[in-house]
Amino acid sequence: MPLRSPVEFLRSLRDGRRVIYRGRAVEDVTAHPHLGRGAAHVGVDFRLAHERPTEPLLVDRDDPDRPASRYFTIPRVAADLLRRRDLIEHATREARSFVPLIKEIGTDALFALMIVTAQMDRAAGTSYQRRVRAFYERCREGDLAMAVAQTDAKGDRGRRPSDQPHPDVYVRRVRETAEGVVVRGAKAHTTNAVFANEIIVLPTRAMADGDADYAVAFAVPADTPGLTMVASPRGFSATSEFDNPLSSRYSLTESLTIFDDVFVPWERVFMCGEWRDAGALAKTFVEFHRFTAVSYKTPLLELLLGSAALIADYHGLLGAAHVRDKLARLIMYLHTGRGLTTAAASECRVREGIAVPDPIMTNAGKYQFARGYHDAVRDVQDLAGGLIVTGPAEEDWAAPEVRALIEPFLAGRASVGAEDRLRVMNLIRDLVASDLGGYLEVLAIHAEGSLETQKLTVLMDYDLAPLKQAAARAAGVTG
Amino acid sequence: MPLRSPVEFLRSLRDGRRVIYRGRAVEDVTAHPHLGRGAAHVGVDFRLAHERPTEPLLVDRDDPDRPASRYFTIPRVAADLLRRRDLIEHATREARSFVPLIKEIGTDALFALMIVTAQMDRAAGTSYQRRVRAFYERCREGDLAMAVAQTDAKGDRGRRPSDQPHPDVYVRRVRETAEGVVVRGAKAHTTNAVFANEIIVLPTRAMADGDADYAVAFAVPADTPGLTMVASPRGFSATSEFDNPLSSRYSLTESLTIFDDVFVPWERVFMCGEWRDAGALAKTFVEFHRFTAVSYKTPLLELLLGSAALIADYHGLLGAAHVRDKLARLIMYLHTGRGLTTAAASECRVREGIAVPDPIMTNAGKYQFARGYHDAVRDVQDLAGGLIVTGPAEEDWAAPEVRALIEPFLAGRASVGAEDRLRVMNLIRDLVASDLGGYLEVLAIHAEGSLETQKLTVLMDYDLAPLKQAAARAAGVTG
Amino acid sequence: MPLRSPVEFLRSLRDGRRVIYRGRAVEDVTAHPHLGRGAAHVGVDFRLAHERPTEPLLVDRDDPDRPASRYFTIPRVAADLLRRRDLIEHATREARSFVPLIKEIGTDALFALMIVTAQMDRAAGTSYQRRVRAFYERCREGDLAMAVAQTDAKGDRGRRPSDQPHPDVYVRRVRETAEGVVVRGAKAHTTNAVFANEIIVLPTRAMADGDADYAVAFAVPADTPGLTMVASPRGFSATSEFDNPLSSRYSLTESLTIFDDVFVPWERVFMCGEWRDAGALAKTFVEFHRFTAVSYKTPLLELLLGSAALIADYHGLLGAAHVRDKLARLIMYLHTGRGLTTAAASECRVREGIAVPDPIMTNAGKYQFARGYHDAVRDVQDLAGGLIVTGPAEEDWAAPEVRALIEPFLAGRASVGAEDRLRVMNLIRDLVASDLGGYLEVLAIHAEGSLETQKLTVLMDYDLAPLKQAAARAAGVTG
Amino acid sequence: MPLRSPVEFLRSLRDGRRVIYRGRAVEDVTAHPHLGRGAAHVGVDFRLAHERPTEPLLVDRDDPDRPASRYFTIPRVAADLLRRRDLIEHATREARSFVPLIKEIGTDALFALMIVTAQMDRAAGTSYQRRVRAFYERCREGDLAMAVAQTDAKGDRGRRPSDQPHPDVYVRRVRETAEGVVVRGAKAHTTNAVFANEIIVLPTRAMADGDADYAVAFAVPADTPGLTMVASPRGFSATSEFDNPLSSRYSLTESLTIFDDVFVPWERVFMCGEWRDAGALAKTFVEFHRFTAVSYKTPLLELLLGSAALIADYHGLLGAAHVRDKLARLIMYLHTGRGLTTAAASECRVREGIAVPDPIMTNAGKYQFARGYHDAVRDVQDLAGGLIVTGPAEEDWAAPEVRALIEPFLAGRASVGAEDRLRVMNLIRDLVASDLGGYLEVLAIHAEGSLETQKLTVLMDYDLAPLKQAAARAAGVTG
Repeated sequence: MPLRSPVEFLRSLRDGRRVIYRGRAVEDVTAHPHLGRGAAHVGVDFRLAHERPTEPLLVDRDDPDRPASRYFTIPRVAADLLRRRDLIEHATREARSFVPLIKEIGTDALFALMIVTAQMDRAAGTSYQRRVRAFYERCREGDLAMAVAQTDAKGDRGRRPSDQPHPDVYVRRVRETAEGVVVRGAKAHTTNAVFANEIIVLPTRAMADGDADYAVAFAVPADTPGLTMVASPRGFSATSEFDNPLSSRYSLTESLTIFDDVFVPWERVFMCGEWRDAGALAKTFVEFHRFTAVSYKTPLLELLLGSAALIADYHGLLGAAHVRDKLARLIMYLHTGRGLTTAAASECRVREGIAVPDPIMTNAGKYQFARGYHDAVRDVQDLAGGLIVTGPAEEDWAAPEVRALIEPFLAGRASVGAEDRLRVMNLIRDLVASDLGGYLEVLAIHAEGSLETQKLTVLMDYDLAPLKQAAARAAGVTG
Repeated sequence: MPLRSPVEFLRSLRDGRRVIYRGRAVEDVTAHPHLGRGAAHVGVDFRLAHERPTEPLLVDRDDPDRPASRYFTIPRVAADLLRRRDLIEHATREARSFVPLIKEIGTDALFALMIVTAQMDRAAGTSYQRRVRAFYERCREGDLAMAVAQTDAKGDRGRRPSDQPHPDVYVRRVRETAEGVVVRGAKAHTTNAVFANEIIVLPTRAMADGDADYAVAFAVPADTPGLTMVASPRGFSATSEFDNPLSSRYSLTESLTIFDDVFVPWERVFMCGEWRDAGALAKTFVEFHRFTAVSYKTPLLELLLGSAALIADYHGLLGAAHVRDKLARLIMYLHTGRGLTTAAASECRVREGIAVPDPIMTNAGKYQFARGYHDAVRDVQDLAGGLIVTGPAEEDWAAPEVRALIEPFLAGRASVGAEDRLRVMNLIRDLVASDLGGYLEVLAIHAEGSLETQKLTVLMDYDLAPLKQAAARAAGVTG
Repeated sequence: MPLRSPVEFLRSLRDGRRVIYRGRAVEDVTAHPHLGRGAAHVGVDFRLAHERPTEPLLVDRDDPDRPASRYFTIPRVAADLLRRRDLIEHATREARSFVPLIKEIGTDALFALMIVTAQMDRAAGTSYQRRVRAFYERCREGDLAMAVAQTDAKGDRGRRPSDQPHPDVYVRRVRETAEGVVVRGAKAHTTNAVFANEIIVLPTRAMADGDADYAVAFAVPADTPGLTMVASPRGFSATSEFDNPLSSRYSLTESLTIFDDVFVPWERVFMCGEWRDAGALAKTFVEFHRFTAVSYKTPLLELLLGSAALIADYHGLLGAAHVRDKLARLIMYLHTGRGLTTAAASECRVREGIAVPDPIMTNAGKYQFARGYHDAVRDVQDLAGGLIVTGPAEEDWAAPEVRALIEPFLAGRASVGAEDRLRVMNLIRDLVASDLGGYLEVLAIHAEGSLETQKLTVLMDYDLAPLKQAAARAAGVTG
Repeated sequence: MPLRSPVEFLRSLRDGRRVIYRGRAVEDVTAHPHLGRGAAHVGVDFRLAHERPTEPLLVDRDDPDRPASRYFTIPRVAADLLRRRDLIEHATREARSFVPLIKEIGTDALFALMIVTAQMDRAAGTSYQRRVRAFYERCREGDLAMAVAQTDAKGDRGRRPSDQPHPDVYVRRVRETAEGVVVRGAKAHTTNAVFANEIIVLPTRAMADGDADYAVAFAVPADTPGLTMVASPRGFSATSEFDNPLSSRYSLTESLTIFDDVFVPWERVFMCGEWRDAGALAKTFVEFHRFTAVSYKTPLLELLLGSAALIADYHGLLGAAHVRDKLARLIMYLHTGRGLTTAAASECRVREGIAVPDPIMTNAGKYQFARGYHDAVRDVQDLAGGLIVTGPAEEDWAAPEVRALIEPFLAGRASVGAEDRLRVMNLIRDLVASDLGGYLEVLAIHAEGSLETQKLTVLMDYDLAPLKQAAARAAGVTG
């Protein structure tokens, strides 16, 4: 049933999954006052493909009998990665800069699993690759929504999985049976898992010898017994569309995803004890996923830049030197990240037949984005002015006598009315000075790995030897 | 009645003032669900002095018959400014980093008015100084709470007051009578005016010839007819003490303060048409007020640093190199600002008998604070981890079965329990990734003048000539 | 005579050109003690093509009868620009990070002239395009070395060309004759003009109505009467290969290029009075030339990174966290710039049949390079240690008894001898803490336009309107 | 013989000391073409005191019978430290920003030795304090010039002194005799030791158990047998006063100071094996010395700022927004460092009767200086323009016909002649884009400890516990 409609997608979420929100079990996530909004938002991916089924950016019709969502297209060459980037940008722009992340991360994980299990099978004679391919076909055929649970609870971050005060702070194999494996533990901030059909679980880091029980990868349906998702209300709890035009309508929903002795049949197990391969899987996933990450940042930065330019215009300040300076820097910032996705795709490496974005370019892009985000926020706040956090509320504007009182003082340059200016200030506050703004700042540095992990990854991938040798030659060092 | 008790202070606010909050008139600000919290908070200044009336830091007993709040002590030497700094730090620390600003800004304005009116009177034979002194005595004797309204609505920011599309976007003189002057217009983000007894109004910038009507300074009681304060709900609307331990309990309340043909008797008028002096008054106020500003930042930065160190400890990461790097930078940042207040006080200049903090040091301190704040926020967010914006809510923790489910996964290093860790993460989110966090970021760059204004002030004050001459000598340029 | 040998190239420079060095006329630049070194260095472009005439990167054999240096290949598609980037990187790497700039800039100018004169001819019926094409063929056929003189002396930088105290501080048309035009003025820092066969002159900025005499573009042979080049000794005057392994062997030679009533025949005049087109020509040249610029930075940054890693290794510090942090940042920095050239080529626009690198990506790349260079220098200096500027000289090392005395104290970690460590420290000092190092820093921010000009260019090119409209929609602003 | 004249000082340097420069032994440092210049420069301290013997800033006459150089005044209160700061600034300004460092560092070391030996004696019953006091009196009475040798050669920087491949890469005790101790090893970059009467040697770091032989502190006269100083030519080898107005006239002379079995009599030994106290001594010295360091930076930053403002003026750009922005930032930068010395003095702690500058403020000041130096350099280079590294040489200017040719093109705005502009550009190149400029950059980050050491020091000194507790309270964490 490829190309599910949004209605079909939403219907599929009413399946008995166990979701907790603010201390209470949620009967139906699509009907819940808060989560329902998130469900509607992430449906954008289905809506777009359903509305324009012949649009190549959205739908892959290479096999005309089996059209599928473009997200499932396995990248073979640079152009495939560029189109994937464009698709992610497009869907995110449609959703006012909020990436749906209902197929993006899942396919990132599937591509990584294909590559790493091929290597594992070749080295150890296992047959994981076949399982991954079968699961991939299932997701593609069913046009399924997927979440990826990777980051463990971690406990003492200075210790390895098997060296923790509590044994479950990394997801682990509890026991194996003839039919499958039983797992326990929790994964933190799983994005949109509450709206997924399938939860793909990956290890979060390289493992050492004693950590074999923690080297597990698998997939489970969202309604699997023993699986509970505690959804976080952070970032998107606003209710006034006037005051918070974004965070009252869109949402990314993160959950603490708990595996309480969940049984996984062997067909859905993709790694189980192979601790030497855990690092490769974590890293390969991240090579795809950081590329996705940088791709979905562009629409957010476009919105920041557009808002900043608009409010500067409303203030009558578009000609001021310091304003132009800030706008120029925002443009440079936006296009540095975007340009590096182009470069990452162009310089991809093909592994096991799959095009992997260049990890140095990808990490450089992610790093530049994360490193510069707070500066960009500061520039936007600077251009917007203090009134974004000291101005009147929706109710003030709605009360005619209050509105009459304040209206003259909220207008901008000639012909810019108070309401327009107030709406743009509200948009900017929502983006950069609110619960949502805080969420986005933290997301900028922590999602898809912190700044430190990007540095680590780059150092791991980089061959310094030839550059050291060239330097030695330039220095006249011989031998 | 010096040294009013908090109760007396609160009682004085029930005076018929016209305050609007979320579209509705507020009967009694002290009894209002949201504003009442702010009133209680700003009362800290009264509470401290009342509780410890013999503490020199809090109470000035130089004239034993007329003890007064220390804020009113006119600084004569560096030590007075240092004590003023210490007082501001102390009260702000008592209030979990939220400066009460109920006497600080008011006395900043009074000191500036004393200096500038002395110069004006000397130059033009006016008698403003006497009025300022009388008003000062009234405030001191009555232990009054004062707000300062300075920033105008501004309209088109590229145009001067008299060149605006709408004539009222800067507060202006509408007409004079034998008894006083009638003023109209609005001042933006007046801090805690809704909790003040007196509103002191100052011009916001230098004026030019045609702007004489906009060169007005005066003071009015908060319940003056024609005065309306539209209080902003931004930044401090949280309600759960668990989720938002700060923004649910403290608040700074900004208002749009509207003067709808307000009559001011001559005794309360401190400038009226003297456009040549408007810039000097605006600037002198700012010389005091930015010193106040840098002083009240210290407790906030202490709280950021303490929280960051605490959560790094909970995570088991205090020994990690990148963690230590970030903590060291936070320490440097905190003490750079604080050190510059020491320097600004130590290098004060005495004008008209009043010690004025060195403007270069003051502005350097404010600039370094503002320039570095977002970096500090990023470092704190980085240390805290993504869970601060993806974690469970108060209701999850309150529901026993949910708590049981999630508790093992929220604990930190050995002996750090989930609740403690969750509380500290909530504190950090409240500080750096929330409506409050956004408010604080915007405050960092806009309150007491934006980064651009600090650069402008420094350039205005700085005599580059001797340094240029020394450079010319070093270059061998003669003549 | 395509594919000239280095010998032929050098011979062509002995042509009576007027070059001044340190106050004296230079008879033969190829035989001059200082300039001869530069001549040898820039010959690398000829050497490479001559040595490997079948290498497509170096030689264009699309027309087998007329092979030509690859630099002359007119880019038609993205791949051409990528190959051009690779060629520039290759030649620069061959020359230890010092770009020869003997064909790069010249062809940048020719491509720009082709585009802009096509537009000019179409609009005004002129026939400049034909002249440009003929001149291009001449250069290509003759395998000529070309310099570009663009930056005028400028005088008062706050004034336009026609509004200067001295009329000649921008190069100008003095008079026209039937045969051509007579020009006067000077161009600053013309790179390697003293080693060029042809000097191409372009306007440096947009002009206004009264500036018509300053809107001139043309080409003259280096030995044209009236042309004098005052070569600068800065940056590359070192003489000890031990102490300064780079600046004693390589050089970029900048000159003040003076036109003292130089006659240019019409066939070599490409703009003469069309002030409206001066800006477009200046800007189009820069679109190519900044792409060249970012391309030739890569080998320099590779050398910085390689040297930094090597010295950290010698110090025994490769495992230290702060060292790894700095190396990771250097990697990110290097590949951000390089990635943006890939993006600039990939997203090129075809104008008049010529592929022009995307100006936003190009400028972002140049800006990120220039903005980050001093940070990179600081990191390299930090890793290298103070000894690079406090250590012994070549003569100390050459004196056996001094060497014996100091040798034990200059060794690094086990197995790293004193001489190797000293050589690498010397390389690093030469790169980042010397006359050359200073030259490179200034080059980083001023060559190919300062940071301010990159911001200006980006703002000029960027269409903010769609982003402002999208922001308005997101804010709910209608109409 | 207090208050020696410069002549007496220079005479005292002709004592048979063993100095090597560029591979050759130097007979008389005062008569040497290069070193003689340095000797003349550092004599400024003697000249000033000799010329103005009643000036309290320069001469301490507290005991009228025993006037002494003010540098020797032991600081007892904040005002003493401020005067010391002012003295260092004054002498450095007199020498065009080049600190003489002939009494500054030596007294820093003596104050530290007084404090730490008092503690050592009290704890262990030794009598080092008496020796230090006697040595101090000798230096004070003799008005001696002193150098401090602290930084060891270090070898493998990842290993402790006793764990090195070569045993001598840290200075060490070889053997003890009844009369004293014999030491061996080398200290790197000892500033102006070649011009000192006494060399004071301190340990460079904290030591561990096996390092006892490396825990040595002592003083030796510069002509002690076995002591050799290999002076570095770096940074100050320029010869043209026109091209390099600073580095051709001033110099700081660093040496590799080698102890080849030097005998030190017990009276001059201040630590010998007490490895537990090595860290305290190194650190206490640095507490004084970084205060000295930040103090002597002010004149350099004044010169940078003055040069930048002057050249911007010459260019006709003083009114440009981006120029004003850069000047404002340079002002902030300069006064941040300077303000923190004021704060460090004001918040000093008295230890063993001696006022020690507050280490947090001192390190914050040093860190801000070092962290911002390259940014300041970039801004100055940016303001100066590319011509500083591409312009003509002294010989061009000296040749009348060349001068006539180039003069019109080197002038600035109206009334700014070419020679003045060229001189200022030369000054700026000398400061920020030359061998000297590179030396100053490296000095900025490495002298008196690198950025990393400042962070380490601050973390070591800082008591995070109260801030963590306050954060815990704010979070509602109990117990």
